[in-house]
Amino acid sequence: MKYCSECGQTVSKKIPEGEDRLRYVCTSCDTIHYQNPRIIVGTLPVYGEQVLLCRRAIEPRKGFWTLPAGFMENGETTLEGAVRESWEEARANLGNENLYRLFDLPYINQVYMFYRADLADLNFSAGPESLDVALFDEADIPWDEIAFPVVADTLREFFEDRKQGVYPVRVSNTEPVWHKEKS
Amino acid sequence: MKYCSECGQTVSKKIPEGEDRLRYVCTSCDTIHYQNPRIIVGTLPVYGEQVLLCRRAIEPRKGFWTLPAGFMENGETTLEGAVRESWEEARANLGNENLYRLFDLPYINQVYMFYRADLADLNFSAGPESLDVALFDEADIPWDEIAFPVVADTLREFFEDRKQGVYPVRVSNTEPVWHKEKS
Repeated sequence: MKYCSECGQTVSKKIPEGEDRLRYVCTSCDTIHYQNPRIIVGTLPVYGEQVLLCRRAIEPRKGFWTLPAGFMENGETTLEGAVRESWEEARANLGNENLYRLFDLPYINQVYMFYRADLADLNFSAGPESLDVALFDEADIPWDEIAFPVVADTLREFFEDRKQGVYPVRVSNTEPVWHKEKS
Repeated sequence: MKYCSECGQTVSKKIPEGEDRLRYVCTSCDTIHYQNPRIIVGTLPVYGEQVLLCRRAIEPRKGFWTLPAGFMENGETTLEGAVRESWEEARANLGNENLYRLFDLPYINQVYMFYRADLADLNFSAGPESLDVALFDEADIPWDEIAFPVVADTLREFFEDRKQGVYPVRVSNTEPVWHKEKS
């Protein structure tokens, strides 16, 4: 951030009165420009014994497999965003969604949320951001080609939880390995 | 948003290529300025049979009682943010935190998350954004002076869940009554 989005003049970093951390503040109109974490919402679509994965058509991690997910938009709920992304990336028709996994990624200012969902039918197909969409049995998951650690963690936990048939909502901090590798 | 934070020129609303919704886009450098929901994190501090509430020293809802909560900052986890806000508003020392409640407030582009937590000691006090901090038995909760519906809902559900001693993570859309009243 270099300029004030309200008046177009330059911003500088300073600690506003009554606060305790550096913010971008306009040098002309004094507007404080807060920057906050962004939410990524997605689903774990389940069909019988199988789960749905998408092969990414875009960077980062183009060609790798992922769960459908993307940035939550203004004006929608976390579930609406998760269902929207699942449609955009996999043309997946879902039902019976339940919050399943929350990941904090403070290094990149993101919070991930995955809903477990039933895939309602087999009419899925690759959306514009996917090269391919397919169902996988646990034994066939391409673990070496999973796009992000949060996806691998969610899948591993799901297969473990499935043995008991109980799916507690889990929260954890995750070291974003792929981000560290890139930086 | 009127000006580009990258180059200082004007922005206009248009649908970028490959997208499906209006964004602020710079008329000079073409930077797309995404706007996303913000996360509010807080806690429900529990001490024996009692819960801790803060009386707000600031608008909105100045003078009303609330759970400690505030905007999540970059570089922290949801739990770190919730604990930080509990310290800032109530000087509360917490432990044994568990995610308890997620509220979607799409009308104001917010997602609320509350962690249940044990209040570790009685060394709490009002921070700069609170007029008062106090422990309440269920029978003494000032229901008519609760600042926000998400706080009242979380408290009601907690007292209900406490009867069973089981605290499932709940997600729901909530009609933001206080916001409708104001607009």
